[in-house]
Amino acid sequence: MAAAGKEVKLIGSRPSPYVARVRIALHLKGVEYEFLHEEVFGNKSELLLRSNPVYKKIPVLIHGGQPICESLVIVQYIDEVWAASGPAILPADPLDRAVARFWAAYIDDKLGPNCVALALRLGDEASRAESKEQLFAGLQLLDEALGKISNGKSFFGGDAVGFLDIAFGSYLGWLKALEKVEGIKLLDESRFPRLAKWAERFCSAKAATDVIPEPDELVEFVKLLAHR
Amino acid sequence: MAAAGKEVKLIGSRPSPYVARVRIALHLKGVEYEFLHEEVFGNKSELLLRSNPVYKKIPVLIHGGQPICESLVIVQYIDEVWAASGPAILPADPLDRAVARFWAAYIDDKLGPNCVALALRLGDEASRAESKEQLFAGLQLLDEALGKISNGKSFFGGDAVGFLDIAFGSYLGWLKALEKVEGIKLLDESRFPRLAKWAERFCSAKAATDVIPEPDELVEFVKLLAHR
Repeated sequence: MAAAGKEVKLIGSRPSPYVARVRIALHLKGVEYEFLHEEVFGNKSELLLRSNPVYKKIPVLIHGGQPICESLVIVQYIDEVWAASGPAILPADPLDRAVARFWAAYIDDKLGPNCVALALRLGDEASRAESKEQLFAGLQLLDEALGKISNGKSFFGGDAVGFLDIAFGSYLGWLKALEKVEGIKLLDESRFPRLAKWAERFCSAKAATDVIPEPDELVEFVKLLAHR
Repeated sequence: MAAAGKEVKLIGSRPSPYVARVRIALHLKGVEYEFLHEEVFGNKSELLLRSNPVYKKIPVLIHGGQPICESLVIVQYIDEVWAASGPAILPADPLDRAVARFWAAYIDDKLGPNCVALALRLGDEASRAESKEQLFAGLQLLDEALGKISNGKSFFGGDAVGFLDIAFGSYLGWLKALEKVEGIKLLDESRFPRLAKWAERFCSAKAATDVIPEPDELVEFVKLLAHR
């Protein structure tokens, strides 16, 4: 396969859920890559600025010298380039693909950034209360969606980790960090029975091993950030 | 083709650039559909509320009774379901697809909503000035991107209208309305030579005929909205 011969590099850092997505997709496809650690607190690297001049943000996948930006765009790229390696990440059926893309966009629009902002203690009390409410509403919707989409199987993607699992699972480290920071339980089995079990399965999946940071690592990161 | 037998309906309204995207995609593929006009100023229809309970927004494509939401998700769905009809909307090459998806997301993130908000005269002077600056910066980036992506051809998609043409072209009515409302020239040939010519070609493309509203129609809409 032509794609296999080209060098794969990923500019990223561990706390970023968006970087986690790309790493999980690469792991699923069995693609070897060089992980170029981008300093979180230092100046942005020349390579990052050159590779993503529009947003200047991680992750950037560099494949055969070509930069690809935006996590969900990269995950779809990986699925298409390494179509013959490992499991398919997007479902095969157009309607299932549309449903996965819809919820992935919902997660980035309404759920994930809220969760990270809350864990980072951004905003005033009123906006934090609103964010928390929106987060719980989002988890409720996703718990119901999981019931419909997975149809009793282990993952949103069926028997294996797929696009929507990656899109949402990438935030699990931050969800757990938020639980610690706030002393609350978010993925409560009594409240969100499906999501709670799914989260356990996702974090145990081979492709996610060593990718989703432990909550303590992120809590430390939050403290470091607060002292700057 | 199985898909051809199923009934296609689209819930939408003329001023929405997001609805325009879906219509252009359906036209490109030669798909017949029933256009269900959603009242812009009235209550939301029962069908809309039931079909898009998460966002309660147009457009919604209903295909064989199944609702699909979010314009760019719908356009990709149309491309996949009617893969054998009409031209491909997304490019074939994974890198080209990633580039098209990246810029389409950029347009929805930084450019389009700014343009509509400015035409609707939303926000105070300071935020409007910032939006205008961001809009010009975005047009500059897209003008350069068009040069690279189209490689001298007529459209972002090459010789024919493709995904990125649809994503950006859907805003052309609003860009022109904004030019009228503000008395400025946005798609100026001297400033954005490639985009200006592309815009002319896009609006003359068969698939976009009767879809992109005339600027006067949108200016009237802005006035109606202001008086409510």
